Amino acid sequence: MPTVGHISPGLWRHPDDRADEYSTLRYWTDLARLLESGGFDALFIADVLGPIEVYEGRPDAALRNATQTPVSDPLLAVSAMATATEHLGFGITVSTSYAQPYLLARTFSTLDQLTGGRIAWNVVTSMIDSAARNLGLDQQFDHDERYDRAQEFLEVTYKLWEGSWEDGAVVRDRVNGVYTDPSKVHRIDHDGRYYRVAGPHLCEPTPQRTPVIFQAGASDRGREFAARNAELVFLGGRDAEQIRRSVTETKAIAADIGRAPDAIKFITSVTVVTGPSQAAAEATYADYLSYASTEGALVLFSAFTGHDWSDHDLDEVVERRDTNASQSTLASGRGSTLREVAETMAIGGLHPVIVGGPAEVADQLEALAADADLDGFNIAHAVSPGSFEDFITYVVPELRRRGRLREGYLAGTLREKLAESGSPAIASDHPAAEFRTRLARS
Amino acid sequence: MPTVGHISPGLWRHPDDRADEYSTLRYWTDLARLLESGGFDALFIADVLGPIEVYEGRPDAALRNATQTPVSDPLLAVSAMATATEHLGFGITVSTSYAQPYLLARTFSTLDQLTGGRIAWNVVTSMIDSAARNLGLDQQFDHDERYDRAQEFLEVTYKLWEGSWEDGAVVRDRVNGVYTDPSKVHRIDHDGRYYRVAGPHLCEPTPQRTPVIFQAGASDRGREFAARNAELVFLGGRDAEQIRRSVTETKAIAADIGRAPDAIKFITSVTVVTGPSQAAAEATYADYLSYASTEGALVLFSAFTGHDWSDHDLDEVVERRDTNASQSTLASGRGSTLREVAETMAIGGLHPVIVGGPAEVADQLEALAADADLDGFNIAHAVSPGSFEDFITYVVPELRRRGRLREGYLAGTLREKLAESGSPAIASDHPAAEFRTRLARS
Repeated sequence: MPTVGHISPGLWRHPDDRADEYSTLRYWTDLARLLESGGFDALFIADVLGPIEVYEGRPDAALRNATQTPVSDPLLAVSAMATATEHLGFGITVSTSYAQPYLLARTFSTLDQLTGGRIAWNVVTSMIDSAARNLGLDQQFDHDERYDRAQEFLEVTYKLWEGSWEDGAVVRDRVNGVYTDPSKVHRIDHDGRYYRVAGPHLCEPTPQRTPVIFQAGASDRGREFAARNAELVFLGGRDAEQIRRSVTETKAIAADIGRAPDAIKFITSVTVVTGPSQAAAEATYADYLSYASTEGALVLFSAFTGHDWSDHDLDEVVERRDTNASQSTLASGRGSTLREVAETMAIGGLHPVIVGGPAEVADQLEALAADADLDGFNIAHAVSPGSFEDFITYVVPELRRRGRLREGYLAGTLREKLAESGSPAIASDHPAAEFRTRLARS
Repeated sequence: MPTVGHISPGLWRHPDDRADEYSTLRYWTDLARLLESGGFDALFIADVLGPIEVYEGRPDAALRNATQTPVSDPLLAVSAMATATEHLGFGITVSTSYAQPYLLARTFSTLDQLTGGRIAWNVVTSMIDSAARNLGLDQQFDHDERYDRAQEFLEVTYKLWEGSWEDGAVVRDRVNGVYTDPSKVHRIDHDGRYYRVAGPHLCEPTPQRTPVIFQAGASDRGREFAARNAELVFLGGRDAEQIRRSVTETKAIAADIGRAPDAIKFITSVTVVTGPSQAAAEATYADYLSYASTEGALVLFSAFTGHDWSDHDLDEVVERRDTNASQSTLASGRGSTLREVAETMAIGGLHPVIVGGPAEVADQLEALAADADLDGFNIAHAVSPGSFEDFITYVVPELRRRGRLREGYLAGTLREKLAESGSPAIASDHPAAEFRTRLARS
């Protein structure tokens, strides 16, 4: 996230942390180069559209601790990072709730052009009331309406990306003065419940057309939405069993609606603290913990659960149901005290943390992937870029030795790298694909 | 404009034109480096939010001629261009009619951060019906309502940029764990006719806070809006007298509302075709003209006038009132035939064109600046980047010899370079400035 403190509250104070340079281009281009040197498929950038202000009902503690507040626009450093890299993909979060599908389609088409097909869209519907209060509403749309709107939003963009301009529409015939053959460009004439969009799309076809679709919903409705639309799903939680259930259920829904279940990749976030040995990693972890902020952790916990924990006693036992937030859950089956929750969240938020030398980390990643049926991981940082540097120095060679990570990159677009499909086009069983020919025939 | 054919229809077919590489990063980073090598203050990017489809009532001819269709998102290559340059500014067009002020404020704050204070916002209200039809409306808001909305939109962004975070709010105190002092961050609680925005702003203060405000309105209402808000005004027209009247009237309104009239800079667009000598420039112009597209010119003329000229005879005399479009007018006091209009527009659209060697071009620019009371020029291309290369090779040294163009760059932000004010902050008599302290006191 283009912010100072993402999910390791307080660690911006660590001398090695450069996350407070998020407002400079150099921070992002250095980070992109680093990740590409380590063979990462993509850099993922999260977003929120309002200050974090559930804790105490105001943003003061989030501001003090720089907990996801301030936060800059995640779309705008992408082209700079693309100039600094050749293969790295970029997964960027944009909410459907406050955007116009016609303009968002152009935004991602432009990024797909400029990056040469390295862009993914992380589709979110926004979950915080502060965003709604800044965007002209008293409170957000309710949960199901957000997904109804999001589904229609996606359909509009699929029509624009896949159907509006046929392959071969752009002929660039300099002799006869024809750049585009207008008979191969189509209006979409979408007239739905929430959106009315005439088209045609403003952009000519781009390498991937539809960007790779990322999604992170964990509710029933979110799972159905992911099964229908996502090519890569982020799953939260520290509990492998629970993640596996989400994977299984999402794949089952996908199969029901005619998508190849294995076409959807599943990942979870993991914060890795590593070093040359287990002992070195544990020393680093202890050092990091000494910078952790309990208040910052409770700011995050309040935002994730939608409940203000500022006036609770730190010794109070937190029931598991209290932590049943839409995006994350706690590991423990029994209750933990609020203090334990804050300590657990101080590094890596509500996601798993692995502390160890190269072999221990590789073992645990392999075990988590097997237990939870995952295809990969979103590696979060405790300090940035130090956590990535350490991961690349110590863990990447071990993963390559085990045949778990490719040497170098596959050729082609981000979709080709992730899906190993040999084609930049979205799969033919994805709902976007049906618009490829429908508009041309009509 | 991130498009193939901007205002010289047909010239994308010229072998030297690279404008059809607009979808690559290299095109933009090369262009930015070139402009900085020539001492340009800023690169200006225009935008439209729908296909150009007044001509024949459909986009076919615009597509065929690549006349401003397709067009990509103008915001997204800025960070790449910023990595390739040190001083060049970027003036980017975004319409107030389809954006959310809270999010647009974050967009420009982020660009101001990433570019180190080199960003300007060209505020437009959108003038084409095709945009409205793509953004959920049957037709655009009427002209005056667009300006009413735009004025309130700007006030919301001024509050966010100038008033929400006081100077000194960000303390980065690593010892005490305080990134931001919350007592210096304020909600804006804007509750207006069109927008309701609680705040606080999502971004910490940036080098310029409010981006440099560009504006281009030429109607009475547009002039009043410019006098109130603009720091730099684009004026259209081939007629120096008419431009001068706009300058004089805008300055008079600015003075009436308490702004220093000389704080507003006025420029017009000029297409320059030059070479080592008058004869060489004329040969180049004749070569360019051989690629001009009459149909493309009529597509543009129809868009600018809001009238479909496709079924008119080319020998028909076009009355001056027919060309009284909001953004542009023709030079001639008497009527011209439609053929003459199309020929005139084929290079440089409705803006002046200067053809000549170094001294002739410098003479004419000096004369136009004097006659029209202008502070500078927006140099448009016939072919890109060739028109800029030629201008830099032949005209820039001559302008420097005459003391009309600085050697190198002034230090500081784009505002400091344009206003020579010695401060990155917007002038204290600008309406944005009143919000600097008002929210802190309340």
